[in-house]
Amino acid sequence: MMHVNGEEIELILCTAPAEKADSIARILVDERFVACVNIQEIRSVFRWEGEVQVEDEMLLICKTTTGRREETFRRLREIHPYDVPEILALPVKDGDPRYCSWVRAEVSG
Amino acid sequence: MMHVNGEEIELILCTAPAEKADSIARILVDERFVACVNIQEIRSVFRWEGEVQVEDEMLLICKTTTGRREETFRRLREIHPYDVPEILALPVKDGDPRYCSWVRAEVSG
Amino acid sequence: MMHVNGEEIELILCTAPAEKADSIARILVDERFVACVNIQEIRSVFRWEGEVQVEDEMLLICKTTTGRREETFRRLREIHPYDVPEILALPVKDGDPRYCSWVRAEVSG
Repeated sequence: MMHVNGEEIELILCTAPAEKADSIARILVDERFVACVNIQEIRSVFRWEGEVQVEDEMLLICKTTTGRREETFRRLREIHPYDVPEILALPVKDGDPRYCSWVRAEVSG
Repeated sequence: MMHVNGEEIELILCTAPAEKADSIARILVDERFVACVNIQEIRSVFRWEGEVQVEDEMLLICKTTTGRREETFRRLREIHPYDVPEILALPVKDGDPRYCSWVRAEVSG
Repeated sequence: MMHVNGEEIELILCTAPAEKADSIARILVDERFVACVNIQEIRSVFRWEGEVQVEDEMLLICKTTTGRREETFRRLREIHPYDVPEILALPVKDGDPRYCSWVRAEVSG
């Protein structure tokens, strides 16, 4: 990855029920685990008890640093209503330097 | 990538017309090519026959393993209405261990 | 990354206000910085002047090549209304060969 002046940025994806998405996002931002969260309406298709199910959910796309990943995973597990929530970290290859500095500052405060 | 206990997880992105998105997602999950699919409404902007076009579509975000990628690509091409559909695989850097185990189990069944 | 026959593909993510998203996407496609853009409605949660804020925005997911990344970043900064817009580049691990060729052709025209 090409981040020359500071820690790498990462995206953390997590799906959640509509009624919990905003509160999860607020906690992560307020407690400085992540700099910001984009929340999107999604329809999830998955197998449950042998049958393919379709459910409306929300996808949270969180922007943070490599150094905050594990703690963000831990905090998500604490506040998420599912027993095994989807929590995935995607690598970011590069970014606008000032935006990346803002993300780093937000999660190190 | 940091997956110590098993195959790497990947995201496969694919855009499709609204009327086909659900059936494509159901086939991929039912036939265990992917563990789950998140479907999102999008507006796509692209050049077609020299003109910039805007079209409503759906984005499918599929969760699977590196080992199932090629077969998922092949199956998508078989069932997709477009001649050259958008099919891209994104690397996943890390994930909640229990969630990643669930994805692996779902596509190896 | 596994692109054997040509330059690597990348996703560039950028958030923008609803009223600017379409025009930003059209410029990037028309001027061949990117091959296509998917625009999604999102709710963004972030801290601003000490308070956690929630705002409706749009997420733009642009498909381009590694070689066009820096110029796309520069053009985005020129046309974006924010002083420090979110601009991030994600790596693509693999893709349908014909689709990837189309992306390369669209941004090299």
